[in-house]
Amino acid sequence: MSDSLEQLKAILAEVTDLSRAAAMLEWDQETYMPPGGVAARSDQLSTLHRLSHIRFTGDEVGRLLEELEDETSGKPFDSYEASLVRVTRRDYEQERKLSPELVSEAARASSAARPVWEQARREADFKIFAPALEKNVELNRQIADAIGYQDRRYDALLDRYEPGLTTGELETIFAELKKAIVPLVADIARHTDAVDDRVLYLGYDPAAQVRYALDLVTKLGYDLERGRQDISTHPFSTSFGPGDVRITTRVSRDFFNECLFGSIHESGHAMYNQGIGDDIDRTPLWAGASPGVHESQSRLWENLVGRSPAFWKHFFPSLRSTFPDQLRGVDDEAFFRAVNRSYPSLIRVEADEVTYNLHVLLRFELENEMLEGTLKVKDLPEAWNSRVKSYLGIDVPNDREGVLQDIHWSYVGFGVFPGYTLGNLIGAQLMEKIRADIPDLDAQIEAGQFAALLGWLRKNVHRHGRKFTPNELLERATGKPLEAGPWIAYVQKKFGALYGIKAARV
Amino acid sequence: MSDSLEQLKAILAEVTDLSRAAAMLEWDQETYMPPGGVAARSDQLSTLHRLSHIRFTGDEVGRLLEELEDETSGKPFDSYEASLVRVTRRDYEQERKLSPELVSEAARASSAARPVWEQARREADFKIFAPALEKNVELNRQIADAIGYQDRRYDALLDRYEPGLTTGELETIFAELKKAIVPLVADIARHTDAVDDRVLYLGYDPAAQVRYALDLVTKLGYDLERGRQDISTHPFSTSFGPGDVRITTRVSRDFFNECLFGSIHESGHAMYNQGIGDDIDRTPLWAGASPGVHESQSRLWENLVGRSPAFWKHFFPSLRSTFPDQLRGVDDEAFFRAVNRSYPSLIRVEADEVTYNLHVLLRFELENEMLEGTLKVKDLPEAWNSRVKSYLGIDVPNDREGVLQDIHWSYVGFGVFPGYTLGNLIGAQLMEKIRADIPDLDAQIEAGQFAALLGWLRKNVHRHGRKFTPNELLERATGKPLEAGPWIAYVQKKFGALYGIKAARV
Repeated sequence: MSDSLEQLKAILAEVTDLSRAAAMLEWDQETYMPPGGVAARSDQLSTLHRLSHIRFTGDEVGRLLEELEDETSGKPFDSYEASLVRVTRRDYEQERKLSPELVSEAARASSAARPVWEQARREADFKIFAPALEKNVELNRQIADAIGYQDRRYDALLDRYEPGLTTGELETIFAELKKAIVPLVADIARHTDAVDDRVLYLGYDPAAQVRYALDLVTKLGYDLERGRQDISTHPFSTSFGPGDVRITTRVSRDFFNECLFGSIHESGHAMYNQGIGDDIDRTPLWAGASPGVHESQSRLWENLVGRSPAFWKHFFPSLRSTFPDQLRGVDDEAFFRAVNRSYPSLIRVEADEVTYNLHVLLRFELENEMLEGTLKVKDLPEAWNSRVKSYLGIDVPNDREGVLQDIHWSYVGFGVFPGYTLGNLIGAQLMEKIRADIPDLDAQIEAGQFAALLGWLRKNVHRHGRKFTPNELLERATGKPLEAGPWIAYVQKKFGALYGIKAARV
Repeated sequence: MSDSLEQLKAILAEVTDLSRAAAMLEWDQETYMPPGGVAARSDQLSTLHRLSHIRFTGDEVGRLLEELEDETSGKPFDSYEASLVRVTRRDYEQERKLSPELVSEAARASSAARPVWEQARREADFKIFAPALEKNVELNRQIADAIGYQDRRYDALLDRYEPGLTTGELETIFAELKKAIVPLVADIARHTDAVDDRVLYLGYDPAAQVRYALDLVTKLGYDLERGRQDISTHPFSTSFGPGDVRITTRVSRDFFNECLFGSIHESGHAMYNQGIGDDIDRTPLWAGASPGVHESQSRLWENLVGRSPAFWKHFFPSLRSTFPDQLRGVDDEAFFRAVNRSYPSLIRVEADEVTYNLHVLLRFELENEMLEGTLKVKDLPEAWNSRVKSYLGIDVPNDREGVLQDIHWSYVGFGVFPGYTLGNLIGAQLMEKIRADIPDLDAQIEAGQFAALLGWLRKNVHRHGRKFTPNELLERATGKPLEAGPWIAYVQKKFGALYGIKAARV
């Protein structure tokens, strides 16, 4: 290997170590840190992020990249060297455009807005949060302008998270989704009696739920030699290296879905990171391709696998042995139906598969409008409530269950929300190809065999890390760029059958 | 405040943040990290320690110190400014003498020696560990030579941990201790029947022990708003800031002392750090004065308080309610006697108060001789075993229970062991003054009131952090420099009474 490559790798390793140390401190903050630790932790995180940013955006990285761009010009696109130089250059150009002052101000603003958002949410009063959000919108705008864009300001932000995707393309996709979902929601509303989910609310011992969920995700392929599960208010997955990829979960005695499907979801994220190639460790390639692709893995395991009839044919007997009182007289078919009940609801993270993307759509629209200035922050709750009414047909009773429900806008991070819908679409598109490649997938799932499925994902998605953009990855894996068709076909078929909706309509 | 002071503080804050992030990663490594996390964690720790060392030893700190030494020359010795400049200068001079290569080689050698020591200990075979220890001895020697010394090579290492104390002074202290302890051990050996500790081995539910211990240490004054307790193989205390000072414990069903006295010991360390002044946070002053002074706090709470009759008059009733089966028919006096049984034993961390310092003495002697080259590493087990026989009168059955028992020699850190004995002496010397200042201390302890005691320690020890050297601190608190007399008087009185030894002899 050339000297320049060795030098670049040494810097990238240092930057990775600093970021991973920060991730470790963030994990602790959400799981075990005592209340008194907040102030010092905020100092430590700010120092680690700042040093990492300074080291990465220094002139030395630019000089090494120039040398290496010459050296690697003849290498194959997907080679280690060419990919490392290409992706590092992309990150470098974006990060360099952000001054340390702007980075630092965004971090400070996010940090300051979090408790304000918490208070506003507690008191269900958007006015408390409005000034902080105005500041965050302004900083999102400054970041977009610093990065630059041709067409739409939102493009600049979107490209940071989902490289290669434009706001216009996203609008086309959402329009297609809306056209399919709105009539499906209406059809389901006419058949609500078809699905009964009362079994999910019978009261399940929390400790037993957590044990069952952890045992289940290890059977899917989550490796506890290189991971662990803890409890946190908001479930998440995080990594400190290929050998340490953790998940957290939360548990409710009164609602069964929260712990089990949350754990499957996070283990989907974690299996992705556990599958990234060791050869690209401690480089910018060692991460998921994008938030959208990452979400495709969590949603694939949570919904396309975990909410399938075959899955419950396999797992229901052991679940019934664990909770015999609650599940007496219930069978796997009834349980499968219960965990798939679809109905318009207020909270995104609790939404079913059909309505979920409408929650994302309205956030995407509102972010875009706030960024462009066509929607004033003070008018946000009204815009939120009217759009929920229009898309989901329900009234928002207060800001807590409305515009204040998500933590995201307390950070300076417009452009992240669309990844939740992209994840659904990418998951379904991958699954279509998986079913072609593994024709007996359902039989395998029913037999509790997940190795072929995980192997397919390892080979076609996980091991590549960030080598490819989402579309490059999809084209290599499925032969096509991102498309909404497979997901639409999937929900129409599944929910059409579940709710007995006439084929003519779907 | 001057510009130079502001600049120096900004650098010291950054160095502190990096060190605390490393401490957080080390805490996780001992408590929750999955097995697969080792390699990446070692990379992260190496990066954090290296960046911290480079930043601290840069020319900029030297330049600012020079400016500030002028500025603060008229300030009182114990003022914030003068103390900060004085202590930072001391650290700076020592750290500057160590090249980044030597620091890094010592870190690598320690890291590499740890699993070798673990294997050697498991197989009870010193020969496996000998090459790694030879390397570590050589690095200790290089560090001592880099720092420099007038008289004895060990002085250079000792001064890093216990500033102001010399090897010669330590030898005088140990000689005095040996002269008092050896006949006391012999006297106790003639009265072994006087104390019965079988009650400690009756089997205590581990979870109940941990709960009881945690509740107890909060009653002493350990603040859980700014701390927490977890389980680890080797108990320790660690801090990430004034608001986050944690302890760990371990628990054995078969031996009661381990969890409770381990927890009291660690909470003694933790209450020290919880009491350091906020005004010196994020500077080199924010830490214990030395390992010896730190150990004085843990041993004071563990032994001078926790193994006193008054303590058990207060706590025994609640302990008996917690473990009614094991403690039926036992009273507080019997329990107090049981937890103070003294007998020569092989393992330092399990040794009673009387014999403990002999374990430290032999380690101090052997470190010194290895460093001087008068003892070859290959001859260490023989020297160990013969010294245990000579000081404690017992035979060492194997290397695991002998020379391989402590983790310390797997690190490059000669000079730390003496702190364990200094802690005992300092604790007793402080306690003599505390009893003069708080005449009804025993009555307060019997009533479960620890606020006056903790307040005394806060005022005279904790809040100062590293402002003073151990002797400066002792002279301010007790009017005298370090002395062995108070500890000797304490053990002779306590164990003379416990074992019914005639006063003539003691």
